[in-house]
Amino acid sequence: MDKKKRIVVALGGNALGNNLSEQMKAVKITAKAIVDLIEAGNEVAIVHGNGPQVGVINNAMTEYASGKADRQPTPLSVCVAMSQAYIGYDLQNALREEFLNRGMAPHNSCTMITQIIVDKNDPAFKDPTKPIGVFMSHDEACKKALENGWEMREDSGRGYRRVVASPAPVEIVEINAIKAMINDGNLVICCGGGGIPVIRCENNHLAGAPAVIDKDLAAELLAESIDADMLMILTAVEKVALNFGKPDVKYLSHMSTEEAQKYCEEGQFAPGSMLPKVKAGIKFASSKSGRTALIGLLKKAGDVLTAATGTTISL
Amino acid sequence: MDKKKRIVVALGGNALGNNLSEQMKAVKITAKAIVDLIEAGNEVAIVHGNGPQVGVINNAMTEYASGKADRQPTPLSVCVAMSQAYIGYDLQNALREEFLNRGMAPHNSCTMITQIIVDKNDPAFKDPTKPIGVFMSHDEACKKALENGWEMREDSGRGYRRVVASPAPVEIVEINAIKAMINDGNLVICCGGGGIPVIRCENNHLAGAPAVIDKDLAAELLAESIDADMLMILTAVEKVALNFGKPDVKYLSHMSTEEAQKYCEEGQFAPGSMLPKVKAGIKFASSKSGRTALIGLLKKAGDVLTAATGTTISL
Repeated sequence: MDKKKRIVVALGGNALGNNLSEQMKAVKITAKAIVDLIEAGNEVAIVHGNGPQVGVINNAMTEYASGKADRQPTPLSVCVAMSQAYIGYDLQNALREEFLNRGMAPHNSCTMITQIIVDKNDPAFKDPTKPIGVFMSHDEACKKALENGWEMREDSGRGYRRVVASPAPVEIVEINAIKAMINDGNLVICCGGGGIPVIRCENNHLAGAPAVIDKDLAAELLAESIDADMLMILTAVEKVALNFGKPDVKYLSHMSTEEAQKYCEEGQFAPGSMLPKVKAGIKFASSKSGRTALIGLLKKAGDVLTAATGTTISL
Repeated sequence: MDKKKRIVVALGGNALGNNLSEQMKAVKITAKAIVDLIEAGNEVAIVHGNGPQVGVINNAMTEYASGKADRQPTPLSVCVAMSQAYIGYDLQNALREEFLNRGMAPHNSCTMITQIIVDKNDPAFKDPTKPIGVFMSHDEACKKALENGWEMREDSGRGYRRVVASPAPVEIVEINAIKAMINDGNLVICCGGGGIPVIRCENNHLAGAPAVIDKDLAAELLAESIDADMLMILTAVEKVALNFGKPDVKYLSHMSTEEAQKYCEEGQFAPGSMLPKVKAGIKFASSKSGRTALIGLLKKAGDVLTAATGTTISL
């Protein structure tokens, strides 16, 4: 067997489902994939997305406060924090169960609430593109824009939605605690939903930002920060493809960082879908010699690790 | 100076406020009290309540799903998990800020999502007493009781509310991870809101229970589990009192566990307020020689530690 690898696993929407009952089922499959990696002798840290979950929480908290003077709106940053618990609770439980059912030690699977610093001058704040929360009519959208200072955008003919910035992650606030946990052999779920985005203010204050950080870029930052060997982005596709959806589609088993960069510039990958995954992969593989990014199927995590399936990105 | 003490601090409602803007202010004062203890050379772990916060979250999630076939209700256990993040995020931030503003290392203040196992045969499940969530009319209450199997009770003439059980905490699921963090010198916020109550099921599954664990009893369990020297319950009163609210009120600086037990039996302490604090104190002080419970003012935590104020309970 190869020597033990330190792997950051990034989990997408398919690993978690779109609501609580789907989540309860999905995390069981996800837990099997993760425990396979650990049973094979590797060290794992987990980052996950939170699109549908933070949407539900943000919608519920917004509707609850709407038009009620005695109820306060809940900032998006607090909703992201809540989504980390909403998902982490189920995920750490499913992992514990899977470990115990295999007769393994439960590896202290646990969830840490994580903040990630973003730059207040990040150009993303001037061009919010990520839609979140409920659809609204034109009139409702105008009202929300004036009331809350929200940026609103028409979304695919289905009505107006709030759009928020997706700035680049700069520094994980709780990184020392996370390192301590990982070095001690614990299985840590952290930087959930890309982390709670915060901005440095005066007197060491960190203010929550009305933003959502891309979870693949957050996972990449974690992987660099803990000196991981691999960044494994698990998703619903078998391999990264060129000419996706066209007759001449070509599935890739490997890309050099240079090739991957070229494909990005050619517009081969869908923004908000494969593009951030490949970009995170390039960044990680370029950050230090010997680092590899892997993109592949959640259910085949073990085979992705050995490059029997999936796409690897390396220098 | 005395040798370093390991202290579990239990924070009540006054440490956190009733809504987000109150919470932002309250955690600053709370952080000063906690950092005072650490600056004096002690090791601290933090447990907090979540009454108003889990109420708001549970109300918002319940209203959001109510009457909508495509929206799922959120179990109370998931709401407790979310409240741990809702509070922990602000609290860990305020602590970090206070450490840095004093020129101290930030001590990796962090929040761990924590589950606590309760006994499914706990008699509390047969007599739910803890009201949570919104007030309803008689008709609404009947509907909810039939729809969700909720136990409803008339509350002080203000309408009907859901009541849930408050079972005794038995075992902290994430205790090994928590111990590892504390032993490594990190400042851990855990067992928030008394912990997410879970019940052991088949195949190592833990199922969320529709219950709320008393946070003082959860803090007591944590204190025993990490072999703490002190359980410090910080609240809004200076000392425990006999004949509270009467002309012959008597404030106590010290109680033996035997005296405290006698006062409990006499009905000296209000259920849901001072009674669980004193009971938690008795349990901790009785659990091992040399262990002391302290009950006192949040703002005077440093003086509570030296018994210059507050009430101590010891064998």
